[in-house]
Amino acid sequence: MIAHRHLWILALLAWAGTPLPADEGMWLFNHPPRRLLQERHGFEAGDAWLERLQRSCVRFNSGGSGAFVSEDGLVMSNHHVGADALAKFGDAAHDYLRDGFHARTRDEEKRCHDLELNVLMSIEDVTDRVNAAVGPGDSAAAAFRARSEAIAAIEKESLDRTGLRSDVVTLYQGGQYHLYRSKRYTDVRLVFAPEQQIAFFGGDPDNFEYPRHDLDICFFRVYEDGRPARTRDFVRWSASGAAEGELVFVAGHPGHTDRGLTVAELASLREWDYAYLLQWLCYREVNLAAWSAREEENARIARDDLLGVQNRRKARLGGLAGLLDPALFPGREADEARLRAAIRGHPELRGADAAWDRIAAAQHAIDAHALRYRLLEAAHGFRSSLFEIARTLLRAAEEREKPDGGRLSEFREASRESLELELFSARPIYDEYEIELLAQGLTWLAMRAGAGDPLVRKALAGQPPRGRAAELVRGTKVKEIEVRRRLYDGGKAAMHAARDPMIEFARLVDAEARAARDAIDVQNEIQAQAHARIAQARLALEGASQYPDATFTLRLAFGVVKGYSEDGRSVPFQTTMGGLYERWASHQGRPPYDLPQRWIDQRSRLSPPTPLNFVSTADIIGGNSGSPVVNRQGELVGIIFDGNIQSLVLDYQYTEEKARAVAVHSQGIIEALRRVYGADSLADELIRGSRAR
Amino acid sequence: MIAHRHLWILALLAWAGTPLPADEGMWLFNHPPRRLLQERHGFEAGDAWLERLQRSCVRFNSGGSGAFVSEDGLVMSNHHVGADALAKFGDAAHDYLRDGFHARTRDEEKRCHDLELNVLMSIEDVTDRVNAAVGPGDSAAAAFRARSEAIAAIEKESLDRTGLRSDVVTLYQGGQYHLYRSKRYTDVRLVFAPEQQIAFFGGDPDNFEYPRHDLDICFFRVYEDGRPARTRDFVRWSASGAAEGELVFVAGHPGHTDRGLTVAELASLREWDYAYLLQWLCYREVNLAAWSAREEENARIARDDLLGVQNRRKARLGGLAGLLDPALFPGREADEARLRAAIRGHPELRGADAAWDRIAAAQHAIDAHALRYRLLEAAHGFRSSLFEIARTLLRAAEEREKPDGGRLSEFREASRESLELELFSARPIYDEYEIELLAQGLTWLAMRAGAGDPLVRKALAGQPPRGRAAELVRGTKVKEIEVRRRLYDGGKAAMHAARDPMIEFARLVDAEARAARDAIDVQNEIQAQAHARIAQARLALEGASQYPDATFTLRLAFGVVKGYSEDGRSVPFQTTMGGLYERWASHQGRPPYDLPQRWIDQRSRLSPPTPLNFVSTADIIGGNSGSPVVNRQGELVGIIFDGNIQSLVLDYQYTEEKARAVAVHSQGIIEALRRVYGADSLADELIRGSRAR
Repeated sequence: MIAHRHLWILALLAWAGTPLPADEGMWLFNHPPRRLLQERHGFEAGDAWLERLQRSCVRFNSGGSGAFVSEDGLVMSNHHVGADALAKFGDAAHDYLRDGFHARTRDEEKRCHDLELNVLMSIEDVTDRVNAAVGPGDSAAAAFRARSEAIAAIEKESLDRTGLRSDVVTLYQGGQYHLYRSKRYTDVRLVFAPEQQIAFFGGDPDNFEYPRHDLDICFFRVYEDGRPARTRDFVRWSASGAAEGELVFVAGHPGHTDRGLTVAELASLREWDYAYLLQWLCYREVNLAAWSAREEENARIARDDLLGVQNRRKARLGGLAGLLDPALFPGREADEARLRAAIRGHPELRGADAAWDRIAAAQHAIDAHALRYRLLEAAHGFRSSLFEIARTLLRAAEEREKPDGGRLSEFREASRESLELELFSARPIYDEYEIELLAQGLTWLAMRAGAGDPLVRKALAGQPPRGRAAELVRGTKVKEIEVRRRLYDGGKAAMHAARDPMIEFARLVDAEARAARDAIDVQNEIQAQAHARIAQARLALEGASQYPDATFTLRLAFGVVKGYSEDGRSVPFQTTMGGLYERWASHQGRPPYDLPQRWIDQRSRLSPPTPLNFVSTADIIGGNSGSPVVNRQGELVGIIFDGNIQSLVLDYQYTEEKARAVAVHSQGIIEALRRVYGADSLADELIRGSRAR
Repeated sequence: MIAHRHLWILALLAWAGTPLPADEGMWLFNHPPRRLLQERHGFEAGDAWLERLQRSCVRFNSGGSGAFVSEDGLVMSNHHVGADALAKFGDAAHDYLRDGFHARTRDEEKRCHDLELNVLMSIEDVTDRVNAAVGPGDSAAAAFRARSEAIAAIEKESLDRTGLRSDVVTLYQGGQYHLYRSKRYTDVRLVFAPEQQIAFFGGDPDNFEYPRHDLDICFFRVYEDGRPARTRDFVRWSASGAAEGELVFVAGHPGHTDRGLTVAELASLREWDYAYLLQWLCYREVNLAAWSAREEENARIARDDLLGVQNRRKARLGGLAGLLDPALFPGREADEARLRAAIRGHPELRGADAAWDRIAAAQHAIDAHALRYRLLEAAHGFRSSLFEIARTLLRAAEEREKPDGGRLSEFREASRESLELELFSARPIYDEYEIELLAQGLTWLAMRAGAGDPLVRKALAGQPPRGRAAELVRGTKVKEIEVRRRLYDGGKAAMHAARDPMIEFARLVDAEARAARDAIDVQNEIQAQAHARIAQARLALEGASQYPDATFTLRLAFGVVKGYSEDGRSVPFQTTMGGLYERWASHQGRPPYDLPQRWIDQRSRLSPPTPLNFVSTADIIGGNSGSPVVNRQGELVGIIFDGNIQSLVLDYQYTEEKARAVAVHSQGIIEALRRVYGADSLADELIRGSRAR
């Protein structure tokens, strides 16, 4: 599964004017690959076609993509994208994530705790304004500050003028800055989710694999003023669904790729990021699984987190295998050498050659801070909801006293509503789970930073990790939303007066956490400037730039529905309902190859040849989960939910030999809704494009 | 579970003549705690009593303990000690580890592949002879060599003279050297094992916990000349079993403790060993679990390894929590400071004060080599059966050309028979599993040493880890026992001529692996000499020494059968059959709280109050698994299989407040054999102490 929060990390094309492999690219909607589509597939991507698709797409703040599928605000995404919302509904008597959910009437549609959906309304290139803020002689720290201030001003101005969520997005590693304006929906209600068994049939062994047999879907409805929103732009349902050899488009929010990295950055990724993260993920997975095994209720509480960690672990392992494949680095090194030589041959570009060395030096400096950053700022040492809440309160009090442009980005005015939605969410928080998570984190902190480290000693405050975690969790008052509100409104004075142990704990580690973040921000600024130089030189040598690395912003990918060959064996483009039952039977229904009882009961009602999943060559990555797959007519033929194992290298290199995007077929969705779930009114709404009136 | 191969790592007493806590100690059979037992418990440990118990005890080369329980060679141990042998019997149609085994007649008793059992026959103190080999001016490297030669000569001489397995054992961190002579049994046959579900009821969540409900038993029989061995010394079965408040004894083979470490060594354990090993164990657990989930047959093949890794992970986590408990270090630091001050007050001992600094410096040097040692010499980078076989062949060819005393210890003449038993074992080897293990190892190697490391590059030889692993596994011939024999007999020339890819791979990494081992051996010699100085000084100040750290040699522990109190709640000393079914029902029989079908079917035949498990204050550690628990009369009242969670700190500190040794009760064993398994002839043999004739 490929939701953004389950990030893997991909790589801008090889250099040297080599044409892109056939179906490569995560294209900007303001720079769509019109010529490519015309030349390769004879398709004319018209403005109206593009705009309608753009405005039909939805981004989930919890990570992932989706699309409007009716004019009455109905949104389709993946079960694993909706998992976060499903988990937050549960209690000891209700496990919606495991058992599914179906609102048979509008009144039964269930409002989500803190889910925000965004629809991209416009894009504006603000590169010149952002760059103009930085003086040629500014130090990296000064440049970072000035750039942050310019970005904050642009966002605030846009928000005030349009009322739309306004985000300045960094593209091409700092080569360009674009302002993305989005409509926010915060009244999002759950309509339908199948059981996890069928959404994630095959579990971890089948995750990132193909052939596949999953009904990984979930439906929400956005509301405005208490009524279903009228969504003029939505994706119409295709009568036939995806067919072999057909050109298809994927519009969604790939989270992050690393194709534009230099070799030095890529080497750091391999030696540091992947190696560290894999160890952290394995540690978390083992501990979450062990805690889950103790009680059924533990399993329910931790399920979404555990699935997320397992998913990231498998993705990272696949990505690391790609980074360790000696096929990768020599090619990249040769490309880089060629580009640098070409640059040195042009006197007016010559300065750009040094950019690589500046990037490498900055990366070296980043690597020196990376562990501290992960443990403290990324909170691997204290990962828990209550710590996150306490730190947000602590920092909000400090940051809101500063001018908007000088704040940490998440505390800027343009982000305020989204921040408050999450901070004041009524999602359940479980003390025993919080203690477990915090004890795990503190143990990891001591393992990695060393028990003798002064900050570790301060953090443990003379107690063993579990004792310290219990004291903090049981002592804090920030579990109560009203307390959060009072502290948030009361600012610094209220925070000090509260003497809340979790807030004081957050304060204890905050100076070092901020220092690690600052240190990396400054180096990132150096890298951004150097990447901008490289981008300019590349533009001069190669002409119009291609697509930038993924940044969890809306992108257009395209490809062909087709199978592939693996170890001499042909892997067909689609799987069927019949294949699902075969796989179930061949594993004797043992988990994770077990089916929900209703799928066993309704088996005879399902037509075995109905397509269930299919693959295409579209270029996707984590965050694309839930992306609509549409045909030339812009009709929905499927929904992305995964990539195959060969796609795990797409983080840093596209390949269409075997890498495939995996989607649920539109026919399989309708068949399951009608025959297994008796959800005819939902199926009708999909086919009609509107609710029955 | 506490088998030795699932090692945790305990701590010699606090200093200063403070009396030992009531039931502390893993005592040497040649220095039994006679006075302690007399004073505390009014028990007279007579020579005959001790000798019979010693000769009734059995050590498993696969890790773990056991005892003769009839005069016809019947051995009782734990299911998890027998797991290694059970796993090696299996094939795609037989999963004895999961399903159990019962030989209803002698003919059905199944010979194990490479299981060696040892019975300790005598102990001789050879400290003076070993130390005499080292000259006062010898460098650490020369001293290590000279000491190794002296040990080899003693072992060889003893083997030649007595025909008994002869091992010189290092005690008190190098303070003493004792020669242990053991009778070897290599024709060992499986008699009975229950299903893993009941042997390990409660799985990982209940492992190292109490109350507990496991039938963790397994029976073997040793044969000589094709007939059951006559074992005059065996443990007689107690009619009543363990009773509350009773004094009991545990005789077994605790694997390793670290109670005698200095503070500097203990800190290294915390900062390096535990932190590294936990990360490695989590990585292995996740990968083995993921591979097992793919196919039922994978799960069978990897089960024993996965259980072992999970067990070590849980033990390590508990141990690390103890090391991170700030209660530990300050006390140890104060004890050390007091002892050092006392030493400085005695001019004739003064030189010993510097021993701590030498130990710390050596530890620092060890830490610098530790990662390399783990990856290469401990083979974390290539962990697989075929690599181990290839390396053994490679090194055997090299080592056997050297004089006996100059060889790596495992290749000395005194160890030859045991080495060959393992090298030529017909245990099954599975290519796909070997590839998986080797790919996991090579990936770990690259993660920890860095993909750019020259040795890593050589090891991968221009391929991704999985590709390289597949090439080596598919290419090697050492899977065939006849090939192994030919290469072993052919020596260096045959090894070179073979051009076997796995052997060449082992050769590729062997120089660096040996270098890491040599470097650590030399530092260990420095530490051994320094510890010997401290031991002498301690002897001068405190009088007769106490018990040494555990070394997987036979030890005598004792304690009282009693419950404890936890969070204000009283935990009773025993559990019952009735409690087992209650726990099963309260978890609705969901794994790992599921029961074998026959336990469900025979429920009404079992008497609910029959004791199943019980706890005592005896001082045990990993390796004690399978140790007989006997009463004052030397009768068997139970069998050790685990420690509770509070016992996980016994690695470096004994406590009897809550730490408990967990055992299966003798009554529960008989009840289960008769009522559930219809194994009356086995039960009769236990009670009669001999087979029916």
